[in-house]
Amino acid sequence: MLDSGTAPPFDEVRLLVCITCRKAGEPDDAVRPGARLHTALTEALKEAGPDFPKVSIEPVECLSVCKRPCTMALSAPGRWTYIYGDLDPQISIDAILDGLRRYHATDNGIVPWRERPEAFRKGVVARIPPLSRSPEKTS
Amino acid sequence: MLDSGTAPPFDEVRLLVCITCRKAGEPDDAVRPGARLHTALTEALKEAGPDFPKVSIEPVECLSVCKRPCTMALSAPGRWTYIYGDLDPQISIDAILDGLRRYHATDNGIVPWRERPEAFRKGVVARIPPLSRSPEKTS
Repeated sequence: MLDSGTAPPFDEVRLLVCITCRKAGEPDDAVRPGARLHTALTEALKEAGPDFPKVSIEPVECLSVCKRPCTMALSAPGRWTYIYGDLDPQISIDAILDGLRRYHATDNGIVPWRERPEAFRKGVVARIPPLSRSPEKTS
Repeated sequence: MLDSGTAPPFDEVRLLVCITCRKAGEPDDAVRPGARLHTALTEALKEAGPDFPKVSIEPVECLSVCKRPCTMALSAPGRWTYIYGDLDPQISIDAILDGLRRYHATDNGIVPWRERPEAFRKGVVARIPPLSRSPEKTS
């Protein structure tokens, strides 16, 4: 997750959307739900206006959360990274934008539980802390 | 996940271990299984010898994978980050060390499926790509 040569500015949120997500057991769509989520979020972010936080959206070929489609991850320098599942390309867009705004407003990426959109409270798959200032060296 | 001021050298793997992990429904231990996993891995890495890859091990207060204890995450600059669950502080240590070695040996963090320890094949919770060179800007 580190690459100092391409580090975005601190106030930019990185949004990774799995474009291969689909529901297990259902016939494969021409356009998968994950790809539809990516498209819908891309459009919504374009229409969000100049006051909305800066977001870099990236399509990803599988976040390995295949049992909880659709999935995405949020990260930003100095903040916890969060991975979410159980998202829907039609009904989750407003909640995701709300969650993005709240995530951006924090210093460390941790939005207080009660302020999180329900889709984020129920859909969290995992989180990863930002780089520690004093990791324990073992070798 | 970015902090260019503290970026470790490229060949160093970051190992995050959840120290609050415990099995649901079981009485709370004086020392939780997650903390025992962290201790066991710290000791195993110290004993792994000078030829073992450099690893920075960090205890984490909850990776939000509470339904699949014990949990940990691997990351390194320029490589995919992987989160694993269903690990055991007694029986998973050798598999984790094997997985760490194989992860370190890759350029991008993706170990071929057949070469992954079984604990990594079955225990994967999610993965996150390294920074893209050309993220799509939306605002």
